Amino acid sequence: MYDMTMELKFHSGKCLYEQIYEHIRDEIKGGRLLSGERLPSTRALAQHLQISRSTVDFAYEQLRSEGYIEARPYKGYFVCRLEELPEEDRNTDMLTEKVNVISLEEGGSVSGEISPAIRYDFSPNGLDMSIFPFSVWKKITKNILNDSNKELFALGEPQGDMDLRQTISRYLHSSRGVNCSPEQIVVGAGNDYLLLLLEKLLGRHIGIAMENPTYKRAFNIFRSFSYRIEIVGMDENGMKVEELRTKQVKAAYVMPSHQFPTGVTMPIGRRMELLKWAGEEEERFLIEDDYDSEFRYKGKPIPALQGTDTAGKVIYIGTFSKAIAPAIRVSFMVLPLKLLARYREECYFYSSTVSRIDQRILNEFIKDGYFERYLNKTRKLYREKHELLLQELAPFRRKFRISGENAGLHLLLTCRDEKLTEKELLEKAAACGVRVYGLSDAFVEETELHPEATVLLGYGGMQIKEISEGIEKLKQAWL
Amino acid sequence: MYDMTMELKFHSGKCLYEQIYEHIRDEIKGGRLLSGERLPSTRALAQHLQISRSTVDFAYEQLRSEGYIEARPYKGYFVCRLEELPEEDRNTDMLTEKVNVISLEEGGSVSGEISPAIRYDFSPNGLDMSIFPFSVWKKITKNILNDSNKELFALGEPQGDMDLRQTISRYLHSSRGVNCSPEQIVVGAGNDYLLLLLEKLLGRHIGIAMENPTYKRAFNIFRSFSYRIEIVGMDENGMKVEELRTKQVKAAYVMPSHQFPTGVTMPIGRRMELLKWAGEEEERFLIEDDYDSEFRYKGKPIPALQGTDTAGKVIYIGTFSKAIAPAIRVSFMVLPLKLLARYREECYFYSSTVSRIDQRILNEFIKDGYFERYLNKTRKLYREKHELLLQELAPFRRKFRISGENAGLHLLLTCRDEKLTEKELLEKAAACGVRVYGLSDAFVEETELHPEATVLLGYGGMQIKEISEGIEKLKQAWL
Repeated sequence: MYDMTMELKFHSGKCLYEQIYEHIRDEIKGGRLLSGERLPSTRALAQHLQISRSTVDFAYEQLRSEGYIEARPYKGYFVCRLEELPEEDRNTDMLTEKVNVISLEEGGSVSGEISPAIRYDFSPNGLDMSIFPFSVWKKITKNILNDSNKELFALGEPQGDMDLRQTISRYLHSSRGVNCSPEQIVVGAGNDYLLLLLEKLLGRHIGIAMENPTYKRAFNIFRSFSYRIEIVGMDENGMKVEELRTKQVKAAYVMPSHQFPTGVTMPIGRRMELLKWAGEEEERFLIEDDYDSEFRYKGKPIPALQGTDTAGKVIYIGTFSKAIAPAIRVSFMVLPLKLLARYREECYFYSSTVSRIDQRILNEFIKDGYFERYLNKTRKLYREKHELLLQELAPFRRKFRISGENAGLHLLLTCRDEKLTEKELLEKAAACGVRVYGLSDAFVEETELHPEATVLLGYGGMQIKEISEGIEKLKQAWL
Repeated sequence: MYDMTMELKFHSGKCLYEQIYEHIRDEIKGGRLLSGERLPSTRALAQHLQISRSTVDFAYEQLRSEGYIEARPYKGYFVCRLEELPEEDRNTDMLTEKVNVISLEEGGSVSGEISPAIRYDFSPNGLDMSIFPFSVWKKITKNILNDSNKELFALGEPQGDMDLRQTISRYLHSSRGVNCSPEQIVVGAGNDYLLLLLEKLLGRHIGIAMENPTYKRAFNIFRSFSYRIEIVGMDENGMKVEELRTKQVKAAYVMPSHQFPTGVTMPIGRRMELLKWAGEEEERFLIEDDYDSEFRYKGKPIPALQGTDTAGKVIYIGTFSKAIAPAIRVSFMVLPLKLLARYREECYFYSSTVSRIDQRILNEFIKDGYFERYLNKTRKLYREKHELLLQELAPFRRKFRISGENAGLHLLLTCRDEKLTEKELLEKAAACGVRVYGLSDAFVEETELHPEATVLLGYGGMQIKEISEGIEKLKQAWL
């Protein structure tokens, strides 16, 4: 058995479990711990290191969930086979290219012509699919499509299969602090469809409050509903509730964990104010779009607003399109009981938009731990990109202010030089082969409140090397 | 300043920063740390607790990002003002209870109590999946999910992938006489979703004409749109255009190939009348729901109304849920050019509801000829059942009139004995262990026009043997 001597620093900022985890991980990555090798038992290692056993448990669990080691019942923990470890230099150029192109069209709001010379695209919608476990997905699909599962070809429940809803409710509870029973969940093929259903529940021609800037797609959808959209200003804590109070609206659309595009995380105080506002009238609701809460770089994940709501005021909407893959057309919404009753009365006849086969595949993917493992891997990958980007941006700090950098897959650069316009920044970047995105795209109302030129830099879909090269080009363009 | 003594467990699984974070958070929530109060500096607290300063930084940062404390430059950290703090002990008993009651009602349309003794169910919605080529579907899926198809995990075009749309347009042209380019096709996860999109194109609060009886699901959906539904009577040729002319409507919903539930096929004369009506005003449209045109037992397939339309008046809607499997959540609509332009302007931002993987599977299934082969087999199978049913029904002809028997997967039996009610027929059948369906379920308006008791006998989902046995029971019940 491998000698597990390691130096633990008790008074460092780093947890003991983290130190153990990192030590073993590096041993595996460095080839000093070989695949198939058995790790010491948690009891033995705890004794050896003179620490509590639960600390070792915790470290092993982390390694397991990230796929470095596996647990074999009655036998212990073993190092996983190396080919299962994430490849570092997988060639995904083709994929990335296509994905990026698609994500451009997605917003529908590509402003102006696309320069053919763009080599680096800092799209805030880009995702990295290079480490997606395609083979796992394939295996699960294959197992499910065997003859014993013919009932999956029948139409499922309108709200989604109970198995999947149970899995989602457990996931939401443990990861997002959402309190709901599976009965409150409605599964649908994408957020857009769920919003279409929600329109039937909230009623027509209602007023809805949105921040400015906000998520343009949601804005477009609400506008296609003929909703009266009332713009409410935001400060560094999110939507201003004072201002909200002056508007005749029935619902407010917010992204408390990570506002798009500003990256603002709504603090608990503002959340309580919003809930208080919603609680003052029977028919007031908050729509919480928790679109990318999985990716956070500083501190623990921020719990969902829904978890703090005790009065049935929050409609929580989430999606697997970002955390798994855009092709996974599965979103879900958690309805407060009052709206659930309305849904069951007025919308029960809308058939499910997700095939039972796809629901089952997703369910197995989550239940068998692949989702968590994949999330851990993507978090790690995005964190690396994020850190690299921040590092590369150091020389920009004199001329630019960086914000929204604690979570998500993009950050904002605001130019301190008031003479430079956003348009100029975009054009200068494009001239150097780099596409960045103007914050003004996300403004839903002409505004004079944000005179400073601000651009979005997304890094999810870019490779490490591309980030460095792209920022190098931006230096030439802007500094 | 508040006394920050806390007990830290160095050897627990919990990080030090987490322990500090939780301690302070609980002090704030418990009201022991009051709003506005200043926390010790990170340096002071670190010294006090004999831990590294970065650990305290980390804990404070977490508290700050969740909004419990705020940082004031040059002054330090202060407890935020909180309107009301989240309650911890949420009573969820009530929740569960309520939800259970609701979930009982879930089906929404279960009429009365279900007799446990039903052995033969002549549901008009039943389908026979016994000859579905599961292994072919599996093979196609497997081939598609190989690594060279990673781009399929990206989000596709809102209207659906061009490959699939080309395949659908070819199929529609050759099988249904529909004239359209792939650009006119919008692929979506089920008819319901497509109708939701259509609502955005046709506008709100419009009047829509429907037959009576009609397809109840479509009726429910239009009602959920707040459409003003105008009932137009029908004769043996379908919707009465004379009567339609008296209504203030913008659109008429029809099923010309095979009206549900009556089974009426609309002859060319009536079709021309309808098209003429639609042509008289710019903003008049016909919604053609071609839900089960694949199954026809007498004569040649009736071409779609869309194929006769030269003025861009017909919105054609079809689905693969019936012809392939209910789990295949792929429907499509063919938009006239005028509405296509409107779709591209006003609905371009709605993402596709069908995953590219599912689109590709379906595309290969059709393109490689499996669909046609499967259709031929199901047609043969359903024809056998259909002929058997008609044969077994011979003894019923004296007492019942048979109609709607030339197409589709159900027929109608109308009782010549005026004293027998529909309810009595259903009850007598149920007493013999057979479920049949009353025509009145499909009536959307109380009507005195159809006093004769009529039941629907569906046979799609029944096995040959069950049909014979079920009819034998019905003989006992009714003859």
